[in-house]
Amino acid sequence: MASMSVKHAIAAAKKLRSLQERFNPGGSDIYPALMGDEAITALIPSGNPLSVHILMFTRALREQGTDEQYEKFGRRADNNEIIGTFAQTELGHGTYLRGLEARADYDRGTEEFVLNTPKLSSYKWWPGGLGQTCNYCIFVAQLYIDNEAKGMAMFVVQIRDEETHMPLPGVHVGEIGKKMGLNGVNNGFLGLKDYRVPRLNMLMRHQQVLPDGRFVKSPVSQVSYFPMVFVRCMVARQNSNYLAQAATIATRYSVIRRQSPIEEGQPEPKILEHLTQQMKVIPEIVTAVVYRLAAANLQNMYNETAEAVYRKDFSRLPELHALACILKVATSYDSTYGIERLRQACGGHGYLTAGNLGNIFAMAAPACTYEGENSVLYLQVGKILMKNWSQVLAGRELMPSMAYISECSKMTSFPQWTGSWECLLKAIQYACVGSIRLAFQSYNARVQSAQSQTAAVNYSGLELTKAAELHGRSYVAGNFYQQIVNSPNKHQRSPQFQKVLENMLELHLIQIFFRHLGDILRFIRITEDEISALQRRLEEVLKELRPDAVAITDAFDFNDKILSSALGCYDGNVYERLFEAALKHPLNRKSVPDFFEAHLKPFMKENADNAKKSKL
Amino acid sequence: MASMSVKHAIAAAKKLRSLQERFNPGGSDIYPALMGDEAITALIPSGNPLSVHILMFTRALREQGTDEQYEKFGRRADNNEIIGTFAQTELGHGTYLRGLEARADYDRGTEEFVLNTPKLSSYKWWPGGLGQTCNYCIFVAQLYIDNEAKGMAMFVVQIRDEETHMPLPGVHVGEIGKKMGLNGVNNGFLGLKDYRVPRLNMLMRHQQVLPDGRFVKSPVSQVSYFPMVFVRCMVARQNSNYLAQAATIATRYSVIRRQSPIEEGQPEPKILEHLTQQMKVIPEIVTAVVYRLAAANLQNMYNETAEAVYRKDFSRLPELHALACILKVATSYDSTYGIERLRQACGGHGYLTAGNLGNIFAMAAPACTYEGENSVLYLQVGKILMKNWSQVLAGRELMPSMAYISECSKMTSFPQWTGSWECLLKAIQYACVGSIRLAFQSYNARVQSAQSQTAAVNYSGLELTKAAELHGRSYVAGNFYQQIVNSPNKHQRSPQFQKVLENMLELHLIQIFFRHLGDILRFIRITEDEISALQRRLEEVLKELRPDAVAITDAFDFNDKILSSALGCYDGNVYERLFEAALKHPLNRKSVPDFFEAHLKPFMKENADNAKKSKL
Repeated sequence: MASMSVKHAIAAAKKLRSLQERFNPGGSDIYPALMGDEAITALIPSGNPLSVHILMFTRALREQGTDEQYEKFGRRADNNEIIGTFAQTELGHGTYLRGLEARADYDRGTEEFVLNTPKLSSYKWWPGGLGQTCNYCIFVAQLYIDNEAKGMAMFVVQIRDEETHMPLPGVHVGEIGKKMGLNGVNNGFLGLKDYRVPRLNMLMRHQQVLPDGRFVKSPVSQVSYFPMVFVRCMVARQNSNYLAQAATIATRYSVIRRQSPIEEGQPEPKILEHLTQQMKVIPEIVTAVVYRLAAANLQNMYNETAEAVYRKDFSRLPELHALACILKVATSYDSTYGIERLRQACGGHGYLTAGNLGNIFAMAAPACTYEGENSVLYLQVGKILMKNWSQVLAGRELMPSMAYISECSKMTSFPQWTGSWECLLKAIQYACVGSIRLAFQSYNARVQSAQSQTAAVNYSGLELTKAAELHGRSYVAGNFYQQIVNSPNKHQRSPQFQKVLENMLELHLIQIFFRHLGDILRFIRITEDEISALQRRLEEVLKELRPDAVAITDAFDFNDKILSSALGCYDGNVYERLFEAALKHPLNRKSVPDFFEAHLKPFMKENADNAKKSKL
Repeated sequence: MASMSVKHAIAAAKKLRSLQERFNPGGSDIYPALMGDEAITALIPSGNPLSVHILMFTRALREQGTDEQYEKFGRRADNNEIIGTFAQTELGHGTYLRGLEARADYDRGTEEFVLNTPKLSSYKWWPGGLGQTCNYCIFVAQLYIDNEAKGMAMFVVQIRDEETHMPLPGVHVGEIGKKMGLNGVNNGFLGLKDYRVPRLNMLMRHQQVLPDGRFVKSPVSQVSYFPMVFVRCMVARQNSNYLAQAATIATRYSVIRRQSPIEEGQPEPKILEHLTQQMKVIPEIVTAVVYRLAAANLQNMYNETAEAVYRKDFSRLPELHALACILKVATSYDSTYGIERLRQACGGHGYLTAGNLGNIFAMAAPACTYEGENSVLYLQVGKILMKNWSQVLAGRELMPSMAYISECSKMTSFPQWTGSWECLLKAIQYACVGSIRLAFQSYNARVQSAQSQTAAVNYSGLELTKAAELHGRSYVAGNFYQQIVNSPNKHQRSPQFQKVLENMLELHLIQIFFRHLGDILRFIRITEDEISALQRRLEEVLKELRPDAVAITDAFDFNDKILSSALGCYDGNVYERLFEAALKHPLNRKSVPDFFEAHLKPFMKENADNAKKSKL
């Protein structure tokens, strides 16, 4: 698996680099930009062992290293003369970075750092490509000077010989074993024992250790988390895409598969004519659209912020951090469970490998726990919301993505219910702000009663999680609303296209409304008639979107090779392709399997003989 | 895979039969009863290719065949002289049995049936063991006499030669290909072309075709669905068990893994001390307990009903059918999504095969779509609820499991909120009845406006689904409440044990309350203070159950071989076992992988050479 994936990843890198040189020499819009594209993912369905090299190793060298360090390491990495990874997570620690056990002790005498993974649980564990693909890594460790902890730092560490690829002395490296998916990624472990690197192997753009051992702190501590922020943005994009792929497959299958007449005596309709099937498939299509737009916005914000950070302007970091957290969580959760729902929407056939939904699930699901475990990120967002609520109480302005919180906080009660999109969006936001207020009351009461802040966060964890979740909904729905209703491009859209977009908005808002009905009814009084009216609108908009479902998913523009699914092929020859795939199974090469003579025949014969004997 | 699983399944069958003969000759409590036990599942983690033979083929011969047919086929099957499967599902049709395309035409002249799968989509597809393991099957087809459809019938069909195992002429049989899991089950396809079987190969206990072609109808049409009812009961039991296994693994991991101090400066606690982790794990433990009890009740009811049906007393069939449907749906959905949540509760390591959570998921998930696709079953239950609501309106009594519906229907408003268990249970039931009433209004309005019943069911599908889901909650919670509070065994429990049970009841009721808060607040006015009080009780009961979590999961009594999980081992040596498992990976056999010389080295060297050249 790893061998094939290394081979294909290298082929992809070569191809994209040559295209880059041909069409835009010196740019980066083809290589490395497209290495994370769905076409490459489709080429290496078991996962790309070079992706951490390209996405994090080279990026961290550029963003965290000094210009000299970039010249020394970064240029060779960008040029793929060396292959590296980002070795942060350990066997015993992941999301809680301050708990990392790997350590780097500065030796003033030799001007070196001594790197160690002191315990089994301190072994680096998970980095992609670390197993056997890389010869370098960025090793993240607790920095110690004279045995005094200075916080996390990053070190460029060579782990294998460049000529022979043999692990260097003091290095214990290998593959971490089989997984639910992504078995080509070559995720590895790494132990270091008294492994020395020169002082200038510590990445020093933002913090420094001087030769005499003096430590110069980073001006902004969050900057060391910045490589993770990038990956969170990427998760938001990729996982929205995985959901879009699954939605495409399920939609196409749903217009080929037929079942159960809707009118007695009529032929069986395409299953997408059934209301319950529409409810399983169409909201997922819309969710994918909504998230792809949110992720694209986030990516733009990242790009702007990254440029600013490079110029040491850190002002937009907090907002980017908050949005990257919440969108990473929302897209990974909703894609994971959404893909499984879509798999089920294909009935039993969704379980066949030929449908590819299991593999798409296996690619999407780990994002819930990597690059910041989701429920920990929810708590981080919850804490940010608590800080912002204090700002609201103090009458201060909030960052743009949280401006709705100030607005809602000023309302004494929810305005007259109209059921309009504005009303629905406001209801979601109002419920969010209500849940922030409740969480703050719990949290604050705990702090007042002399609990520490961390303890108060823990014991208010469920309410903080709820507030964070609703903030995610509010942001995403608000963003979608703006793009449909208030976009400057709106007048360029045909009325027909605008109508489809508005139907998607209608569906998204009503769906979120019902999904969070309990949260909303806690804070807003809505009559049973008003709720029933929304139920009718939900049924109506599903019916309206039904004829557009195939076109919308076609517009995601995944070709058959990317979807790699007998159920979701463009030509709709589902049964032919399932059969074709089945016939390729090794067991179908022989009419009688070897296990017949070996096991089955002796078993059945013996049973028959015994039966005869007992009759005698 | 299939070869190993056939070998192990045969070994298991032999062992259990010899144990049966030794300890209880003539009984069935060891063999075949334990062939579906978790110990056997653990022995054949890729799935048992004999399970449909044992669970459905032999059972259907006994229950659907005449005594003479049992003597001819059933005895040999019970004795494993022949191996069969239950060939019902087709490539193009699953849950909607009336749509099956396979046909059996009666030939009066020869007193034979002519069996055909006329199109690609009519091929049988999915039956376990059909691929290469079986030599017989029960073939389910539309019965035609003089080209007139008579409904479904079952036929005993030999598909392979007993001596050579070669497929017989007219038989096209094979394996359907790779799946997300259960790859040892040897699920197969089967096409028949003008394949003739004697008249007495049709199973005739309940319906008959006489030699002259006269058709004698079954007195109760549902009786042909009876083999599926059995399997639904089994799904309820097995899927509750899968959830219990995953909960055990996640609980054990959560008391070994440590993360993030709760109090500043304190050491990192076991992650199960974190409230959010408690909320991820403990409700799943309780759900598993609750469902295991419900599934055991259902199994008793099945056993009683099966005996009655054998005596041609069909009176309890409707209630059994309704309960088997709703519990099959509830346990399969909640175990599938619950197992994935528990996997995520183990962080990144949950993704490792060594943790076994991925495989448990892959075993649980297909139950959502097999043996009656879940959302179709929801609609069936919804229809049953509509019928029963008509009964309520007509002032008639309902079956015992729906008695609460009549009760709630008589209440003019919800009584004073007390927050007691009785109050919480009643709130869930009241919301259920409210949603039944709403669904009935929609459904009935559609029927009144001249829609057909099937069309009305379709267009009221979302509301029927909601009503069915809440009926499942009401039944399960009511059953648990009875067993904890009103059980005749209650006085035999120690006060400490009773307290743990009551904590589980408290958690279950509050958890369902919050999960369906929106549904409840539509029908019952509850103040914000009352809701907040429940939030506090939720946090409190999680804390109270925390010290019992390990003991409760230990009491599920899964040994390490059954869990087969480095994360969930009894001794808690998580990291050692993960490492041990990793070292067994083939890539770790060599220090330098073959792909280095083949791919990596040429790539890196070429890049370095090009870089040198471009500098010159």
